[in-house]
Amino acid sequence: MRLSKLFTKTSKTAPADEVSKNAQLLIRAGFIHKEMAGVYSYTPLGLKVLNKITQIVREEMDAIGCQELIMSGLQKKETWDATGRWDDNNVDIWFKSELKDGTKVGFGWSHEEPIIEMVKQYLSSYKDLPVNVYQFQTKFRNETRAKSGIIRGREFVMKDMYSCNASAEANQAFYDATIEAYNRIYDRLGIGEDTYVTFASGGAFTKFSHEFQTVCDAGEDYIYIHRGKNIAVNEEVMDDENLEKLGIKREELEKVKSAEVGNIFNFGTQKSEDTDFTFTDADNKKQFVHLSSYGIGTTRVMGVIAEKFSDEKGLVWPEAVAPAKVYLISIGGEAAIKCADDLYNELGAKGIDVLYDDRDVRPGQKFADFDLIGIPYRVTVSDRMLESENYELVARADGQQLLLTREQLLAKLV
Amino acid sequence: MRLSKLFTKTSKTAPADEVSKNAQLLIRAGFIHKEMAGVYSYTPLGLKVLNKITQIVREEMDAIGCQELIMSGLQKKETWDATGRWDDNNVDIWFKSELKDGTKVGFGWSHEEPIIEMVKQYLSSYKDLPVNVYQFQTKFRNETRAKSGIIRGREFVMKDMYSCNASAEANQAFYDATIEAYNRIYDRLGIGEDTYVTFASGGAFTKFSHEFQTVCDAGEDYIYIHRGKNIAVNEEVMDDENLEKLGIKREELEKVKSAEVGNIFNFGTQKSEDTDFTFTDADNKKQFVHLSSYGIGTTRVMGVIAEKFSDEKGLVWPEAVAPAKVYLISIGGEAAIKCADDLYNELGAKGIDVLYDDRDVRPGQKFADFDLIGIPYRVTVSDRMLESENYELVARADGQQLLLTREQLLAKLV
Repeated sequence: MRLSKLFTKTSKTAPADEVSKNAQLLIRAGFIHKEMAGVYSYTPLGLKVLNKITQIVREEMDAIGCQELIMSGLQKKETWDATGRWDDNNVDIWFKSELKDGTKVGFGWSHEEPIIEMVKQYLSSYKDLPVNVYQFQTKFRNETRAKSGIIRGREFVMKDMYSCNASAEANQAFYDATIEAYNRIYDRLGIGEDTYVTFASGGAFTKFSHEFQTVCDAGEDYIYIHRGKNIAVNEEVMDDENLEKLGIKREELEKVKSAEVGNIFNFGTQKSEDTDFTFTDADNKKQFVHLSSYGIGTTRVMGVIAEKFSDEKGLVWPEAVAPAKVYLISIGGEAAIKCADDLYNELGAKGIDVLYDDRDVRPGQKFADFDLIGIPYRVTVSDRMLESENYELVARADGQQLLLTREQLLAKLV
Repeated sequence: MRLSKLFTKTSKTAPADEVSKNAQLLIRAGFIHKEMAGVYSYTPLGLKVLNKITQIVREEMDAIGCQELIMSGLQKKETWDATGRWDDNNVDIWFKSELKDGTKVGFGWSHEEPIIEMVKQYLSSYKDLPVNVYQFQTKFRNETRAKSGIIRGREFVMKDMYSCNASAEANQAFYDATIEAYNRIYDRLGIGEDTYVTFASGGAFTKFSHEFQTVCDAGEDYIYIHRGKNIAVNEEVMDDENLEKLGIKREELEKVKSAEVGNIFNFGTQKSEDTDFTFTDADNKKQFVHLSSYGIGTTRVMGVIAEKFSDEKGLVWPEAVAPAKVYLISIGGEAAIKCADDLYNELGAKGIDVLYDDRDVRPGQKFADFDLIGIPYRVTVSDRMLESENYELVARADGQQLLLTREQLLAKLV
């Protein structure tokens, strides 16, 4: 993509009311636009990052046998009455409105109840199980405060997945497979090393539920990490009884600030009993479905990555989610421009995403924007370097600088 | 995809309150699920169709130099006050709600005002123009009646595109380029032949605006088509003065029922004046931006295709949007199953989408479901046919039936 065609611009400042680092950086670099507190639009650069995160999550969900669908945002009261979650006293983050005839409608803050309602209509026999479905859906949550940028918004995108199984064993096996899939996702997103499977309090059927927490100063949680076992516990379950169950000692733990990047919950048959979600088993007996749900906030993950991979100059995207791999700059006259044009076309033809800073601005601004936007590699072509047939390659993450021939450059990037 | 893994099932009946043919068929065949009147979820099969439509639209938008982004669904009152369109007396289809502190918010039924608001913040000079941006966004519209299935929903997806230009000429040139892009889209979607650029009444700046209307019994409009010139006029502009301007005679026109599958509007500088949307020209003078907007309801298009391409047995998807190209059936014993498994893998490896009916049900049900789901080709493998090393290929559209060797079959499909 040519920067001259991009309608967004970088900025030295963020809106005065924007206190979170992730949103400040993402706004200044032109990835998101603030609509109101906790509500952001995603510009072409931001959408590219979000799409890359989405695709990684999608591939790992498909790999464990899940099917993608998309539910509606509009929800009806009846669907939520069975579990008592329509009531504002039980769920205080609904946005509600009404049809012209006065019928109340809500805007989906979750989709557990409607997914059950839908799957119910297709499910009768144990032969129909398992069912594993997921979506990338915009959620609306009427948060009282929304000061964490895209880490906690009033509108955000979540991958929510639901698994329906015939037995506790099958449910648990899929739950465990999903933990592995989630670990692969965070690895691929570049936050695997700092992301911990974290034991949290469970429901009626399980001692623990699990969160995936990423060590992050901007996080809203504190967790206690066990580096040796690569697990953590959250504050709710930080007591001697639980620690003993998990086989860890208090003194082995380290308290850190963290952001939740995923959570999974084994409902057992609790929700199915609430909603009369059943199937007939091989003996033609009615049984409750074993249900689990699995969430990853994709926009939130983008915010956490922005927080963690950034420095005083700007963003530092991991390559897997960067909006482009290369930021191409030409300095000087026609020869340098021609050479950069040519390299832009060649890299594009080889499938390398390039953000080509072809703007008529001074080199200093191009260098500063490279740093702020946070593309992994900068390639600079200048009249002077062309004389010695060299290209400069700079890595955004560590600043490493190389002078390479064209052949060496291509070998490095392609 | 194996049908045994798909959680949806076909059904002989649709919900009693579902009166539209498109929704009846799509529900019965397992493409959509009705949440409430005018609100549908898209199951894995339905999402596949929608994604194919989306991708065709995206490619044609990108080809004329547009950039994709995604705006927020939540909207603030101030953004819409400038044009008077927050007021329920002017726009009577808002879904509105409020934040905890009482601040009113709306759910986007359109994004013209917020797009202007956003682009404004990046746009200063004529050098920044043109800006052409688009999104695939869920729109919420509080329709009084919602009886047309996914052709007119309370929640639907629209590709909305907005172009900002420095002059009336540049605006018009891009408007004309978009008409061509839209024609390519409808051609690729399989409805090109029946889709007419239709003259509708214009605004302050143009005599006419344009709709794209597809001849369709389920449509809500009547248009007058001119087969020779491949254009149409809608009822608003059906008078002698307009016909003369367009150089067509009343007796050359044919009145047909139609569904609007796209509309485009040249606002000139009208909206920019309302919203103070300006840039500075080469002489450093303030000028109003020339604006146009361009919509295609992608879920609506899916509904129109379902209406048009269907018969008494079910859906008949055009290949470009079908959820798969081949519906594979095995009849008989282990040899047939092994052969079908093998063909499924081979076609998949060659990039052909196959819906493999591997269910343990009688052949009659498989044939009926093939007809209802509407995949372009059915391939049948049976013990009997294997004896003569033959495969049966049936085209859903015209029922043409061929007995082919494996080599011939692959040549036909790949």
